[in-house]
Amino acid sequence: MSVGTELLLGQIVDSNAAILGELFAELGIRHVRRQTVGDNVERLVEALRLALSRAEIVITIGGLGPTQDDITRDGIAAVLDSPLIVDPAEEANLRDLFETMKRAWVPSQIRQAMRPECAAFIPNPFGTAPGLDCRKDGKVILAMPGPRNEFLPMARGVVHETLMGLGFQGVIHSRTLRVAGIGEAAAEQLLGDLIRTENPTIAPYAKTAEVHFRVTARAATKAEAEALIVPYLEQVRKVLGPCVYGEDDESLESVVLRLMRQRGMKLAVAESCTGGGLGARVTSVSGASDVFLGGVISYDNAVKTQLLRVPEALLQEHGAVSEQCAAAMADGVCKLLGADVGVSITGVAGPLGGTPEKPVGMVFVGISGSRGTSVHELKLRGSREDIRVRASQAALYDLYRHLS
Amino acid sequence: MSVGTELLLGQIVDSNAAILGELFAELGIRHVRRQTVGDNVERLVEALRLALSRAEIVITIGGLGPTQDDITRDGIAAVLDSPLIVDPAEEANLRDLFETMKRAWVPSQIRQAMRPECAAFIPNPFGTAPGLDCRKDGKVILAMPGPRNEFLPMARGVVHETLMGLGFQGVIHSRTLRVAGIGEAAAEQLLGDLIRTENPTIAPYAKTAEVHFRVTARAATKAEAEALIVPYLEQVRKVLGPCVYGEDDESLESVVLRLMRQRGMKLAVAESCTGGGLGARVTSVSGASDVFLGGVISYDNAVKTQLLRVPEALLQEHGAVSEQCAAAMADGVCKLLGADVGVSITGVAGPLGGTPEKPVGMVFVGISGSRGTSVHELKLRGSREDIRVRASQAALYDLYRHLS
Repeated sequence: MSVGTELLLGQIVDSNAAILGELFAELGIRHVRRQTVGDNVERLVEALRLALSRAEIVITIGGLGPTQDDITRDGIAAVLDSPLIVDPAEEANLRDLFETMKRAWVPSQIRQAMRPECAAFIPNPFGTAPGLDCRKDGKVILAMPGPRNEFLPMARGVVHETLMGLGFQGVIHSRTLRVAGIGEAAAEQLLGDLIRTENPTIAPYAKTAEVHFRVTARAATKAEAEALIVPYLEQVRKVLGPCVYGEDDESLESVVLRLMRQRGMKLAVAESCTGGGLGARVTSVSGASDVFLGGVISYDNAVKTQLLRVPEALLQEHGAVSEQCAAAMADGVCKLLGADVGVSITGVAGPLGGTPEKPVGMVFVGISGSRGTSVHELKLRGSREDIRVRASQAALYDLYRHLS
Repeated sequence: MSVGTELLLGQIVDSNAAILGELFAELGIRHVRRQTVGDNVERLVEALRLALSRAEIVITIGGLGPTQDDITRDGIAAVLDSPLIVDPAEEANLRDLFETMKRAWVPSQIRQAMRPECAAFIPNPFGTAPGLDCRKDGKVILAMPGPRNEFLPMARGVVHETLMGLGFQGVIHSRTLRVAGIGEAAAEQLLGDLIRTENPTIAPYAKTAEVHFRVTARAATKAEAEALIVPYLEQVRKVLGPCVYGEDDESLESVVLRLMRQRGMKLAVAESCTGGGLGARVTSVSGASDVFLGGVISYDNAVKTQLLRVPEALLQEHGAVSEQCAAAMADGVCKLLGADVGVSITGVAGPLGGTPEKPVGMVFVGISGSRGTSVHELKLRGSREDIRVRASQAALYDLYRHLS
C-alpha cells in the first residue's frame, strides 16, 4: 500500500511500488493486490482493514515523516488497536542525530520516535523516520519511508531479510525472449498451446515494435527454476525462429553490434526522418566504436546530393521518400565512410508533410552491403515520435536479418 | 485502477497512474483511492465492485489487448451485468486496419472488437485496442489501453473531454516555466519567499538537466485561475532571467528552432559521443526542416578528419575529446553543409574509455557562427545514457544562449 496525496495528484510516479513488486517475485511471495491512498487517516484505516482481511503481510510505503500529513503510524496503531507510544531510546537517538546534523529540533519531530506498542523500529540510516515492524494476531505490517534514497536501502536490507525470515518457500525466476518482426497476436497464435502452461508460465509484453515473452517458473531454488525454463525457451525459439533476436536485457542494437564485431564489419548510417535517432540507438551501447564509424544526417536534400551523392535526377523523378533514394543513401554513406554495411532511413514522420501518394508513416529502409542493396517499405502508424522510433527499430531488425 | 500482473511483479513502473492523477487535479476531480490488480478476472471484478461502491467514476488502465491475459473488458461486462458483444462496425475497422498494416489477421483479434452491450468505444488512433466508455445505473467506467503511446493521447484527448463533460465544479489550473542552466536548489534559493505561497502554489520538478516550476491555482474558472497565475509567472521570470527558456510544453529544441526560424538561420550538427542524439532531438519537432540541414555523426576519428576536416595534427596533439576538436568539428560541419550555425559535441560517455586526464563525463560543446567559435567544457555525471542526454541538453542550452 502506498500512502501519499502526492501520488494521487500525479506529482510523483510510484516507482517504489515496482521495486517492492520485484522483491516479492524474487522471494516467491504472491503479490496480488495494491492500494494507494492519500494522507487521510480514515481512508488509510479502511484500506489497511481490507488489506489485512485478505493478506498475511501488508507493506506500507510513505507517510512516516514528522508532519501532520504523515499519518501512517496513526493508521496502523488504530487498525491494530495498539496505542502509539513515544520510545525513549528512539527519542534519544533522534535528538543525537539532530545535534550531529546541526539541525534545530522542533517539537513535531517527536512523532518520528513514536510507534504502536506492538511494533519494533526498522533502522533508517538514510533519514530521520525509522520504519516499523508490527506483529499482531498472526498478521504482519511493515511500514517503510517513501523517499527513494531511504526506501531503497531498507527494501534491499532489513525488509528483504525480514520477509525471508517469514519462511516463504522457493523463488519465482524469469527469463525473457525478445522478439521482433512479428506482432504480439501472431506470435501468440504460432505458439499455440505452448502459451497455456502452468509452470513455467509465459506472458507476452508488447513493446515499441517488438514483443518480449517472459517465461517464469516457481521452484525451490533459482537453479531448479532455470531448469524448468530452459527447455521451454528452446521450444519457443524453434517456433518463432529468427524473430527471437535476443534474451533478457540484450537489446536489438547490442545484438547487431555483436554480430558485426564477430565478422569484423564496420557500419555507417544515413538518416533523414529519424534525424540521428538510429545512430543514437547504436551508440547507446558501450563499445559501439569497434563497429560504428558514424553517419550522415541528410535532413535537407542538398545534404543527400552533395554528401551522399544521391543523383539530383533521382530526387526529381522519385522524390526523397522513395525506394530509389533509400538505396542511393545507403550506398552513398557506405562509400563515403568506407563501411562494410550502410543503413539508410527516409520517410514521412508527420504529422505534417503527408500526401496521398506519400502519406505520413511511409518509410523506406535501405541496407547496402557486399551482396548489393535492398530496400524495405514500411507503413507505420502513430505519432511523429512513434513513427521515428518504429523506423529505427525496423532498420535495426532489417540489419539483424541481413547479418543472420 | 491499473490492471496487469506485470505491475505487481514490478516489471514496469506505473507512470500512467501519475498522468491520470494530474488530469484529475486539473479537472478538479477528487482522486482519493487507487487499486492495482493482476490479470485475474475474479480479483478484477471484486476490485471493480469495491470501486463502484465508493466512487461515481472508475477508470481502468490496461488489459484491453487481444490476448487471453487481457481481461478488463470481461471484468467490466461481469460487474455491470452487460453481456460482451462483437461490434460489427469495429470488427470491420479492425480488419481494414490489419489489411492496411499488412499484418495477418488472427482469430483472437476479434476480442478487440468486443464491448459490453452498454458501452461505446473510445477511438484509439495509435493502437488496435479501442477504449471503452461504459455507463450504467448512474456510474461511469472508462477503460483505457496500457501502452504509453496509446494511453497518453487518449488521456489528453477523449478521456479529458469526457470527464469535463461530466460537469465538475471549479478547476485546478497549472502553468509551467521551463528552466535550464541552473540547478533546482539554486533556483529555489533565488526565488526565496516567492515559493511559499498559498494560491497559486509553486512546485519545482527536477527533469534531466532542467527544472520545471509548476504554478498551480484553484479557482471557479480557468480564466480566473489564469489571472492568479500570470503575475506570478512574471515575478519568477524576473528573478530567474534568461534561465527561463520556455513555458508549458515548449521544449528547448522547439525554442531554438523558433529563434533560428525568425532569423532565417540554418543549423548543422557534428556529433561524436551523442551519436546522433542531438539531431534526433532537433528533428523531434515537426517542421524542423526549415532550419535544420542535417549533420555528421563523426564517431570514428577518420570521419572527423575526412568529412569535417579536423586536422590530423590537432587530433594527435589534443585528442578527439578536446576544446580544439570541438571547435574544429563545429566549424567543419558549418562549412560542409553551408549552415549559419554549427554545433558540435565530443566527449567520454563511459562507462569505459575514461582516463585520469579525460575522465568519463568530460564533454565539450562547440558553437560556430558568424561571431566566431566558442567551446564550453562540461563535467557530467551519471550513466552513459545520462551523460549523453545531458550533453545534448547542454548543447541546446548553449545554442539558445548564443541566439538570445
